Amino acid sequence: MANPLTADQLSRLDAYWRAANYLSVGQIYLYQNPLLKQPLSLEHIKPRLLGHWGTTPGLNFIYVHLNRIITNRNENVIYITGPGHGGPGLVANVYLEGTYSEVYPEVSQDETGMNKLFKQFSFPGGIPSHVAPETPGSIHEGGELGYALSHAYGAAFDNPDLVVACVIGDGEAETGPLATSWHSNKFLNPAVDGAVLPILHLNGYKIAGPTILARIPHDELRALMIGYGYEPFFVEGDDPQKLHQIMAATLDTVFDRIRSIQRDARENGYRERPRWPMIVLRTPKGWTGPEQVDGKQTEGSFRSHQVPMGAMSHPGHVEILEQWLKSYRPEELFDESGRLRPELAELAPKGERRMSANPHANGGLLLQPLAMPDFRQYAVAVTKPGQLEAEATRVQGLMIRDIIQNNPRNFRVFSPDETASNRWNPVFEVTDRCSTAEILPTDEHLSPTGRVMEMLSEHQCEGWLEGYLLTGRHGFFSCYEAFIHIIDSMFNQHAKWLKVVNHIPWRPPIASLNYLLSSHVWRQDHNGFSHQDPGFIDHVVNKKAEVIRVYLPPDANTLLSVTDHCLRSRNYVNVIVAGKQPALQWLDMPAAIEHCRQGISIWDWASNAGDSPDIVLACAGDIATLEMLAAVEILWRELPQIKIRLINVVDLMKLQPTREHPHGLSDDEFDALFTPDRPILFAFHGYPWLIHRLTYRRNNHRNLHVRGYKEEGTTTTPFDMVVLNDMDRFHLAQDAIRWIGTLGEAGEAVKAKLQAKLAEHQTYIREYGIDLPEIRNWKWSGWDAIRAEKPE
Amino acid sequence: MANPLTADQLSRLDAYWRAANYLSVGQIYLYQNPLLKQPLSLEHIKPRLLGHWGTTPGLNFIYVHLNRIITNRNENVIYITGPGHGGPGLVANVYLEGTYSEVYPEVSQDETGMNKLFKQFSFPGGIPSHVAPETPGSIHEGGELGYALSHAYGAAFDNPDLVVACVIGDGEAETGPLATSWHSNKFLNPAVDGAVLPILHLNGYKIAGPTILARIPHDELRALMIGYGYEPFFVEGDDPQKLHQIMAATLDTVFDRIRSIQRDARENGYRERPRWPMIVLRTPKGWTGPEQVDGKQTEGSFRSHQVPMGAMSHPGHVEILEQWLKSYRPEELFDESGRLRPELAELAPKGERRMSANPHANGGLLLQPLAMPDFRQYAVAVTKPGQLEAEATRVQGLMIRDIIQNNPRNFRVFSPDETASNRWNPVFEVTDRCSTAEILPTDEHLSPTGRVMEMLSEHQCEGWLEGYLLTGRHGFFSCYEAFIHIIDSMFNQHAKWLKVVNHIPWRPPIASLNYLLSSHVWRQDHNGFSHQDPGFIDHVVNKKAEVIRVYLPPDANTLLSVTDHCLRSRNYVNVIVAGKQPALQWLDMPAAIEHCRQGISIWDWASNAGDSPDIVLACAGDIATLEMLAAVEILWRELPQIKIRLINVVDLMKLQPTREHPHGLSDDEFDALFTPDRPILFAFHGYPWLIHRLTYRRNNHRNLHVRGYKEEGTTTTPFDMVVLNDMDRFHLAQDAIRWIGTLGEAGEAVKAKLQAKLAEHQTYIREYGIDLPEIRNWKWSGWDAIRAEKPE
Repeated sequence: MANPLTADQLSRLDAYWRAANYLSVGQIYLYQNPLLKQPLSLEHIKPRLLGHWGTTPGLNFIYVHLNRIITNRNENVIYITGPGHGGPGLVANVYLEGTYSEVYPEVSQDETGMNKLFKQFSFPGGIPSHVAPETPGSIHEGGELGYALSHAYGAAFDNPDLVVACVIGDGEAETGPLATSWHSNKFLNPAVDGAVLPILHLNGYKIAGPTILARIPHDELRALMIGYGYEPFFVEGDDPQKLHQIMAATLDTVFDRIRSIQRDARENGYRERPRWPMIVLRTPKGWTGPEQVDGKQTEGSFRSHQVPMGAMSHPGHVEILEQWLKSYRPEELFDESGRLRPELAELAPKGERRMSANPHANGGLLLQPLAMPDFRQYAVAVTKPGQLEAEATRVQGLMIRDIIQNNPRNFRVFSPDETASNRWNPVFEVTDRCSTAEILPTDEHLSPTGRVMEMLSEHQCEGWLEGYLLTGRHGFFSCYEAFIHIIDSMFNQHAKWLKVVNHIPWRPPIASLNYLLSSHVWRQDHNGFSHQDPGFIDHVVNKKAEVIRVYLPPDANTLLSVTDHCLRSRNYVNVIVAGKQPALQWLDMPAAIEHCRQGISIWDWASNAGDSPDIVLACAGDIATLEMLAAVEILWRELPQIKIRLINVVDLMKLQPTREHPHGLSDDEFDALFTPDRPILFAFHGYPWLIHRLTYRRNNHRNLHVRGYKEEGTTTTPFDMVVLNDMDRFHLAQDAIRWIGTLGEAGEAVKAKLQAKLAEHQTYIREYGIDLPEIRNWKWSGWDAIRAEKPE
Repeated sequence: MANPLTADQLSRLDAYWRAANYLSVGQIYLYQNPLLKQPLSLEHIKPRLLGHWGTTPGLNFIYVHLNRIITNRNENVIYITGPGHGGPGLVANVYLEGTYSEVYPEVSQDETGMNKLFKQFSFPGGIPSHVAPETPGSIHEGGELGYALSHAYGAAFDNPDLVVACVIGDGEAETGPLATSWHSNKFLNPAVDGAVLPILHLNGYKIAGPTILARIPHDELRALMIGYGYEPFFVEGDDPQKLHQIMAATLDTVFDRIRSIQRDARENGYRERPRWPMIVLRTPKGWTGPEQVDGKQTEGSFRSHQVPMGAMSHPGHVEILEQWLKSYRPEELFDESGRLRPELAELAPKGERRMSANPHANGGLLLQPLAMPDFRQYAVAVTKPGQLEAEATRVQGLMIRDIIQNNPRNFRVFSPDETASNRWNPVFEVTDRCSTAEILPTDEHLSPTGRVMEMLSEHQCEGWLEGYLLTGRHGFFSCYEAFIHIIDSMFNQHAKWLKVVNHIPWRPPIASLNYLLSSHVWRQDHNGFSHQDPGFIDHVVNKKAEVIRVYLPPDANTLLSVTDHCLRSRNYVNVIVAGKQPALQWLDMPAAIEHCRQGISIWDWASNAGDSPDIVLACAGDIATLEMLAAVEILWRELPQIKIRLINVVDLMKLQPTREHPHGLSDDEFDALFTPDRPILFAFHGYPWLIHRLTYRRNNHRNLHVRGYKEEGTTTTPFDMVVLNDMDRFHLAQDAIRWIGTLGEAGEAVKAKLQAKLAEHQTYIREYGIDLPEIRNWKWSGWDAIRAEKPE
């Protein structure tokens, strides 16, 4: 239908849009006089103007048209604002439909409230200038660009009735993550998932320069969208009256298309990937704003990006602003008391259909705990430490498999094609990789209903998972350790979101963001130096302690316990680092549970010191633990007079003082473990200085010596990787002797012997390409067995 | 021309390809018996098999066809291997054309050398399994995926004769950075730049799953490439004989097209963006490898990704390998001595036309120093500290402007649309933003010859710049501080490359990678919490000290000196953090130069302690310096008996011990500055614990107290940002009193007064939205003036 809106509908819809625009401009500029009851003067204007006008009228335009669709069809829609700079627009709409005052009653729907709404924006003690956790209806912070569409798809998975409208700015469209996120349509199943409606908003300019997609020919843009697998609809122009009709007609068509695709798949079963609709909306930047300021084009130019008129004391600027505000004819929009006129207010959807009050945009409201299996059933049967080998993440995979099976609609796993590589293969007993693209007979474990989301884009995995969590579901991201840095900045944004949300009472907690980092630095000997980086932990601990948790389980049973804990937690980011290769197992399940409960503890079976150790040997991380335990046995064999205490750390944040992290040990507890004055040798999975950074305030820090990864590595053998970084058993045993310092000639002789072992290792690997048999076949003997070897 | 190859040409070209494939398989598997002179047995095979076969035959196929084009047309081509896993293929070709033996003479072109070539691959003491710095002809590490095409375009800028052939794996094509890098063609000028030939290699599978682009319909893929602005050519099949003809014909066409586009632009001037050609090459994964292993399809399947047969002791596997190797008919390829037969060897290009010996792939060979202006000419005329305001980065922009002008062909600046926002506006006096897309009359500073590379993708900026540097040119990346984390992982890969290159004698140094981080954490009060993150420094210092430098110039003149230093340096990553807002200036140019030379020094004019301070006040970063100096004056006014030493740090790595970083102070030097026993209060630009991590081994570390960013922030005033993080002058002065500890009631009274100031600040900003006039207008008075205020 060419012109679906009657004159009255058009007029009211346009008025509602003008109301949103008026409130947006008011937020950016006004300190007082919200209804312009007095002639506008400098004193009514904020002394410092902060905000982004350029994208805002377009965001408002889309919002009011979505309101129409929701109301007409009782649709279930949420709104993701890629151009999150347009905060005032979203806040304006949330206020117009009443949600704002419900959540923040002091910002009432009257003149006083409107004045508060205006003043608080970008103001100390007020609200951020961007779309933020404080904005009802938002699951997407207006911070770093690139993730809008990934979040949108994440929100749509397993929400069959939901339509996620996602506005993508043409600036954001230039980012890498956004450019690949269009391909998410190869993972969306119309039979079981909701729909995503991408709206590419071309307003032509970024901060200062033009955008790429606004400057390619129409046919090329159409080809690009078709190439991405969409059916593009173009809504272009600058005359609001015409654009309202075109937008309304287009949205009618697009929602028909979406529902028809879904109906077909739901009635007839999934057959082939549909060509989902998307919209290209081309409107001027700063649309309806001042055409010119100081003789320079402003509407339709980069000069509208932030505040079109900065210096309000400049002659004529107050007048331009007044004229601009009045161009929306506020007297037609709000009554004398400042309330939106009822014939406009009724255009907004009601209750939870309001995009600002849709519970999907406040996922904690919908969150259901996972149906968790008893993790103890997957226990590796450890009868004595260090005898049996197991692949920790494969054992974890059994648990993940059953969680997938128990929770068929609210749990997914995400990985850049590394689910199998990281040994979660058991999940393929109950599900597949997800693909709605072509599937060939030779493919394995691939189907349109798979729960394993694999795309070779860490950005996509992270973005999808965030969208899934923020809408109240659960998930797990498994990744190669080195390449998780690809989403460092996405993690930042999510951690910041959680930190803020912790102080917003109307946002109940959501499921934690869980990372498994495997294929880690010590077992990337086959891929070499470029695949070796344990620094994500360093990055993570910079964020607020209240949202950050880091776990380094040394074996399979501890990994199971940690996994169970993390999947039950809320509003955290949990980082778990665990190996995938066959490795010796240390703790039976009861011991593992107790060790994880404490987070850090003395392993008595690997200690012979009682209350007065000569040295404390500490370790965190599977390979660090292995090498330290092997070093313990070397010391026991060679210098049995040494009294050793061995400490293992699962929960890294235990090392920080209590005042820095809620998990932190008190200083007394720390001293009880690490002693106030004995030397400490610590083998750490990651960069050694991280341990210093966590412990520099501890009493015994001056005696702490840490070995870890120091950026040495290449394609070599597994054991050579630890040797290259001085964290192997031979170096550690030498270190222990050095730091004890009182072993005299006996100690020197042992050090020389260990140095010879290192030389033997070098010679051997260069000849045979594999590690010495004594390294490959090493198992734990224990104090009694070693003592028995030398019965005096 | 349908079949451009004669039967003889086809036969020899195929033989050359087989030779490359033979050598590739040999590298992955063989320990001995390189020419199969004896029947193959288990002892000839490496005990541990590491490598990636899947992509290798395709890479070899492209390589030999490019050789043909280079030889036939005397083209100047380098080869970027997106699927860097295919290391054996590149090494094989480098060896075949003789470069390998020139660089590594022990790997000679005979049976002994071939045996070494085979054994060293993925072997301890040998070479990495991926394309790496050790691989001649490479500027692109086979590590993290996503940056091949960005590197390729970076290499092509300002290299008019060069064609950069860039193979993009269909796995890599799923990454965000790669997905947006196709748009680089909107920045390539055929009149002055070289060409990039993207070759999208569809072999269908990643590690375990299928790829997206291999599973969309042919028309959709074509539309996608057209949408990206290319003219796609399809080369598809699995019959080598047919594919050779198609590939040869396609490359002839494609190179004709490239040269015709360039000729037109160079003869007639640049008119409009050309539609550059690109190739889609679809061949089976593991092409020419075993069709089946253990009854499962291998060629054309994900099972070819790494080593098709892992367990060689498995019955039949040795036979499959022998049959596979023999299928290349090595006896036709190599003579008895193991040398490539002369009729094949002559197919390779000669001298520097060999892609492995092209100097563009070893940029240090081509590097010319920048023609540098005297940075002192831009000096801000500081006559007394803390009186004059200047925008540091705008002053730096004057220098950058002149460097652009002095170096019109080998220096560019890169930024995600933030060049102007970061105040480098002066550059637009001499150049423009670069765009070869549509330009409108309303655009400012935009042209196809602009030297400012702006795309809203930090990945692109970084990738282009890396490609530009690696081919022997210079550049600067300016970025918002918070969002530089987007390229954390790219930085990792580049830093690792440099670390390795430092130990490769045949790779001369290249220009350093320079970052300006501005719009930093303390002046993102208008954008709010999501834009606040100073943690890139923390990330950077985890990499090898020998390649990392971090600078925090406190004002414009120090920024100029640091900039000069960084642009003259080689093989480093230099991170410079500097503010863009008007800020008080401290040092005149001679003092700035001396301060930067030392990297850290006592500011005598802000000290009154002589040799025995009561407290050392240290600062690093412009805002930290401002607040600390303001605190000094508070203390001088309120408690003039306090003896203060003020230290400023420009070169952050000075804080580390000499043994950890080449710039580090000795312990004696550190003690001379920071004293062995006086309290130290440190105001730091970034996360406070970074200072602890750098200094935990220093004698006086126990007395060190650091203030910095602790993840508190929102949209507020500039001064409130420091207040929220306890790094403002009022907090700092209170801290100083606390840590001196001997000031008794006088001290307590001052602390109470300062606490009242903080309350006053709170009240004021919530009312007015701007900072207290005394904060906004504060200037440095100095000891003498303050003393004069109270003449007893």
